[in-house]
Amino acid sequence: MAKQDRAIRTRRAILEAAAAVFDERGYEAAKLSDILALAQVTKGALYFHFDSKEDLAHAVIDAQVSVVPTPPPQTCKVQEFVDVGMVFAHRLTVDRVLSGSVRLTLDQGGHDLNRSGPYREWTDINVSLLREAKGQGELLPHADPEQVAPLVVGAYAGLNLMTHALEGDRSSMERWASALYQHLLPSIVVPAVLTMLDLEPGRGARALGLTDEAS
Amino acid sequence: MAKQDRAIRTRRAILEAAAAVFDERGYEAAKLSDILALAQVTKGALYFHFDSKEDLAHAVIDAQVSVVPTPPPQTCKVQEFVDVGMVFAHRLTVDRVLSGSVRLTLDQGGHDLNRSGPYREWTDINVSLLREAKGQGELLPHADPEQVAPLVVGAYAGLNLMTHALEGDRSSMERWASALYQHLLPSIVVPAVLTMLDLEPGRGARALGLTDEAS
Repeated sequence: MAKQDRAIRTRRAILEAAAAVFDERGYEAAKLSDILALAQVTKGALYFHFDSKEDLAHAVIDAQVSVVPTPPPQTCKVQEFVDVGMVFAHRLTVDRVLSGSVRLTLDQGGHDLNRSGPYREWTDINVSLLREAKGQGELLPHADPEQVAPLVVGAYAGLNLMTHALEGDRSSMERWASALYQHLLPSIVVPAVLTMLDLEPGRGARALGLTDEAS
Repeated sequence: MAKQDRAIRTRRAILEAAAAVFDERGYEAAKLSDILALAQVTKGALYFHFDSKEDLAHAVIDAQVSVVPTPPPQTCKVQEFVDVGMVFAHRLTVDRVLSGSVRLTLDQGGHDLNRSGPYREWTDINVSLLREAKGQGELLPHADPEQVAPLVVGAYAGLNLMTHALEGDRSSMERWASALYQHLLPSIVVPAVLTMLDLEPGRGARALGLTDEAS
């Protein structure tokens, strides 16, 4: 049992170190030796858990959805849909596995990494919440969860990329996510629901029950 | 004069070849030797026009806005704003300099390429058209061109990236651009203008006066 705990901790340390190195250098330039040094593990330990640099990169990419806390359920499902994006933005600057995963997902190198996982998973989560919202009468009749969900996921990815290209970091993502929801939701949400939503920056921390100060 | 023409043609051939190689391989993996072979020019000719691979990549990135035809002026400035994005989507699958430039702009390798140019230029073009639209009373009172323009540019970039990650090409960008405008514009455009807009896929070709068949 203790041995199993240690294996889980080691795997986690390698994943975190890999995410940090991928985040800083990108996939091609990242070196296994740097990951080993940062994780303070042996090459044997790394190869016990991961087959290759590619395998490690896929593990970082695929960890993306699981490292973001699921926001608590809300009576208003549109609010819960918004919270998914706002919690993501809130965590982006503090969780290095998340930021490394985002970096790899948004890269498009010639190598054969499969980056489709996070796009599909976030889209599925959003489709499901928007369908619930629709079932509760929160959406306008023509609003199509299958179209809105990938539109939001794709747009979100691009705002992330743009802030990184213009500002060198992703600290303004809460502001951009807020602006995205403010401009998209009027075309899909019924007015009575629209006025009740919290779309302001800081919503990620509030949704998780953290005060703005503590977050 | 003939000599100058030849120099312009050579520069253009190098730029096109570079864009094609960058598009296929990304910045890091692209080799100058492949660019020379594709452009059918000598190393001397390349270094006459460009200082380095980095210089060439910046030239491809910075050519982005200039290779997209400017849509003809419209009485309705919101339509002209939409046309900028729809013409971009229309050209994306046929202009190799444009697709190579988009690839480099959306990449985020560890190297020091400055990718901010196209984001800023497209944002400036959109701000300017939205300001005209606002001046003509086409926008709702709270609509802020300085916020909407970068929101559209960033969202657009992400949809581009997502379609590439999920589908391996960018052929569905016209459909996504159309969906983006359809979902964003109701929150910024007055209803009387909204109903007159052509936001459908194929608008890029129509704005340029091409029939859908000829495009």
